[in-house]
Amino acid sequence: MNKQLTIDLNCDLGESFGIYKIGNDKEMMKYVSSVNIACGFHAGDPSVIRKTVNLALEANVAVGAHPGYPDLQGFGRRNINYTPEEIFDLTLYQIGALKTLVEVEGSKLHHVKPHGALYNMAAKSEEIANAIVQAILKVDEELILYGLSNSYLISEAKKLGLRVANEGFVDRTYNENGQLTPRTHQNAVITDEEASLKQVIKMISEKKVIATSGKEINIEVDTLCIHGDGAKAVEFAQNVSSILKGNNIEIKTI
Amino acid sequence: MNKQLTIDLNCDLGESFGIYKIGNDKEMMKYVSSVNIACGFHAGDPSVIRKTVNLALEANVAVGAHPGYPDLQGFGRRNINYTPEEIFDLTLYQIGALKTLVEVEGSKLHHVKPHGALYNMAAKSEEIANAIVQAILKVDEELILYGLSNSYLISEAKKLGLRVANEGFVDRTYNENGQLTPRTHQNAVITDEEASLKQVIKMISEKKVIATSGKEINIEVDTLCIHGDGAKAVEFAQNVSSILKGNNIEIKTI
Amino acid sequence: MNKQLTIDLNCDLGESFGIYKIGNDKEMMKYVSSVNIACGFHAGDPSVIRKTVNLALEANVAVGAHPGYPDLQGFGRRNINYTPEEIFDLTLYQIGALKTLVEVEGSKLHHVKPHGALYNMAAKSEEIANAIVQAILKVDEELILYGLSNSYLISEAKKLGLRVANEGFVDRTYNENGQLTPRTHQNAVITDEEASLKQVIKMISEKKVIATSGKEINIEVDTLCIHGDGAKAVEFAQNVSSILKGNNIEIKTI
Amino acid sequence: MNKQLTIDLNCDLGESFGIYKIGNDKEMMKYVSSVNIACGFHAGDPSVIRKTVNLALEANVAVGAHPGYPDLQGFGRRNINYTPEEIFDLTLYQIGALKTLVEVEGSKLHHVKPHGALYNMAAKSEEIANAIVQAILKVDEELILYGLSNSYLISEAKKLGLRVANEGFVDRTYNENGQLTPRTHQNAVITDEEASLKQVIKMISEKKVIATSGKEINIEVDTLCIHGDGAKAVEFAQNVSSILKGNNIEIKTI
Repeated sequence: MNKQLTIDLNCDLGESFGIYKIGNDKEMMKYVSSVNIACGFHAGDPSVIRKTVNLALEANVAVGAHPGYPDLQGFGRRNINYTPEEIFDLTLYQIGALKTLVEVEGSKLHHVKPHGALYNMAAKSEEIANAIVQAILKVDEELILYGLSNSYLISEAKKLGLRVANEGFVDRTYNENGQLTPRTHQNAVITDEEASLKQVIKMISEKKVIATSGKEINIEVDTLCIHGDGAKAVEFAQNVSSILKGNNIEIKTI
Repeated sequence: MNKQLTIDLNCDLGESFGIYKIGNDKEMMKYVSSVNIACGFHAGDPSVIRKTVNLALEANVAVGAHPGYPDLQGFGRRNINYTPEEIFDLTLYQIGALKTLVEVEGSKLHHVKPHGALYNMAAKSEEIANAIVQAILKVDEELILYGLSNSYLISEAKKLGLRVANEGFVDRTYNENGQLTPRTHQNAVITDEEASLKQVIKMISEKKVIATSGKEINIEVDTLCIHGDGAKAVEFAQNVSSILKGNNIEIKTI
Repeated sequence: MNKQLTIDLNCDLGESFGIYKIGNDKEMMKYVSSVNIACGFHAGDPSVIRKTVNLALEANVAVGAHPGYPDLQGFGRRNINYTPEEIFDLTLYQIGALKTLVEVEGSKLHHVKPHGALYNMAAKSEEIANAIVQAILKVDEELILYGLSNSYLISEAKKLGLRVANEGFVDRTYNENGQLTPRTHQNAVITDEEASLKQVIKMISEKKVIATSGKEINIEVDTLCIHGDGAKAVEFAQNVSSILKGNNIEIKTI
Repeated sequence: MNKQLTIDLNCDLGESFGIYKIGNDKEMMKYVSSVNIACGFHAGDPSVIRKTVNLALEANVAVGAHPGYPDLQGFGRRNINYTPEEIFDLTLYQIGALKTLVEVEGSKLHHVKPHGALYNMAAKSEEIANAIVQAILKVDEELILYGLSNSYLISEAKKLGLRVANEGFVDRTYNENGQLTPRTHQNAVITDEEASLKQVIKMISEKKVIATSGKEINIEVDTLCIHGDGAKAVEFAQNVSSILKGNNIEIKTI
């Protein structure tokens, strides 16, 4: 008898700021198994964060910290050349705030997923990945790092004994090395929803993906990132959820 | 035989920001028994905060969170009309970050002292005091609130079962009701060091202070605030420390 | 023969920030005669501001600076106790930036309208109103101050020789003294669109408004504020514009 | 008869922020001929800026805008990957604010010198240099760009018809290509004051500098940057000033 296939669906939430609203946090939580909550640096403010933590706990999804660069205008998406030590410090601070906010509600922080430029720079830099992994370990050795499959985030975490979730993307293409096609390339994003859902199923059930070259490659994916903003975010999440269930894949956190 | 007289000396530290330096944190820690560390809103950044926490733990002083309004330009000293709920949220967030930063170093957060305008507004507003007390209780019921003697911070904390430390000021005068003379009054600040040290001794050994009217009134003081910035801060701390020891008063945290 | 009735319609725009979007700036500009552009303190960033200035100049509407408190999270709506000198400085800085951005596009700054808490505090405080008027005069004596009818903004400007536009609100009620009913009162806002349009026509054609007490009072209104955010902002602007034209009132800047 | 040798001495000032003080602005102005005033993004706040502008006008030195990245914690020294268009916008905004602040005091903005990472990134990137030059030209074609000698800032400005001042550094070493030795190299900074003063004289009187390789190279220097912070800044400025006068070199703006 086959083992039940499972996948974690994660979504970045809590990204509103003051009167500025982004994302339909409450609706998205119906379709995902874990959420990454902004910590107040690239998005989120203390009131937004606390409300989002409470929504997540009510929805019974796993709560992760989503630390980013302190660049609200750039939404944490611009590379900024912090030293590894500064990255250690700002990651620790943000995880720290979110951890307490989760604990005061009687729950426990489940994972950490770096945001935007912090995620991307760490994926490519051993030093930055190391600083993030060290910060997480310092806070709690049982936390799980959500990081890009085949990146330094994953390899550094494994080296230092931190649990990981290999993250795949439902709407991005991969090259033959199992890495994301850079966004500067024309074919970086899969705009056809059907194609994107097909890739998802293949990733989970076969642990394979077809690279842009046409070659089928291996990929390890424990969690899939679903975008929470955009007009069709909720509808898309609903479709992904349906397709997964239709293929007998259980949506379940790690 | 008399009971040993003791007093807590506290100081606001960790108030540098990036390349901007304020205070001689390392020196001040030699003379105080507890420190209130800025949490990144009115002052402090993640790197400054972590370094200050480590200095405090090395110096073996009690570490408190020093949350304030997010107003770096005003150093948290301007009144801002937040709702009590927003104050609850921003206090919770800041204590949360500091608590984790202390815990990852193997120690425990000892107290919370609101900063500047947050402290002053809470002293006079039952609602704001309540929001702060609720936030502290939510984080940890064993934390101690450092609040102005005879203020709403103290009365709300007592009402809700939170431990308090009544704070006195070494260089401020009091009116007959046991409240600080507002800074807008000419005689608000005691500039004569000798007079200020005399007031300190009287506060601790007799639990009395001479009000600006000349009348002697009762005051309860568990902790005294020493300023950490200014050219003569270290020297003054040293003198306070000497005078206390000379009067057989032990400097000791609560 | 009657003189042609005219009214200025103004709208606060340029309030997006980074990826956070507020308001349909381009559409709103079709229906108003002047716009107040956020200057980067309570909302707006340099890129948003420049784009909004260009949109305004293309739409041929008068461009005003809309300075506010540096409180993005509170959208400049929280009272903050700045000194009059600090208000002078922050107003000057913001008008300064916007003035240059308008001039480099070959046009000229037309007016200044303080935003949110700055507007409301100045309306009630002679000192704050004075600081704002002084800042505007210092920049250019031909600028027009948009201020609440019957407020200190208007009286200080008149005293110091600065041109003013008395501002009325299309969706707010007034008390017998010609002042806005505070938002904390239940009947502060007119939610019925028809009633609000009726008030607008009366204000312009009769220079009168019916106060909440039922009494008809005099009011001087040179410009009306239309909100640019909210789902129905554009539709409402369109309706106001139609009604005005239907009543033979020309929409025209001061 | 020889032509009188002259040199401009410039200094970055107005870099305090709220209660955080940096530099002895008033003293430094006695020894320099032009100042670069922070515009509120990497340092400076509206009150600091206005005071510094007034000090500069009283001291009769040329006033320049000193725009930087909006990174107060990093003091504008961290690379941030803005697009050229964003750099155009943020430069325009900052110059705009400062220009008005100078004009309201009856004077005229003299030059623009990008700060920190903006200066360094522009020196090496044609695109960023171009964005800055375009922004300056848009504001006023008569402004002068202060840029690193032999950098893209200079070449782009010349290409587009903007006046330039080639900047040299009194305490930095150069390589054979006439570029600054990167700060990561051990011998990047000249710590010996005498050696540094010798280099200054050679730069001005012979238009030459001895590179780290020992080879003498040509260098064009119109202005020299003197640091305004640090304990010995004023004393050093005084010494540079004396040495220049002793060598019959007039300190004079461009």
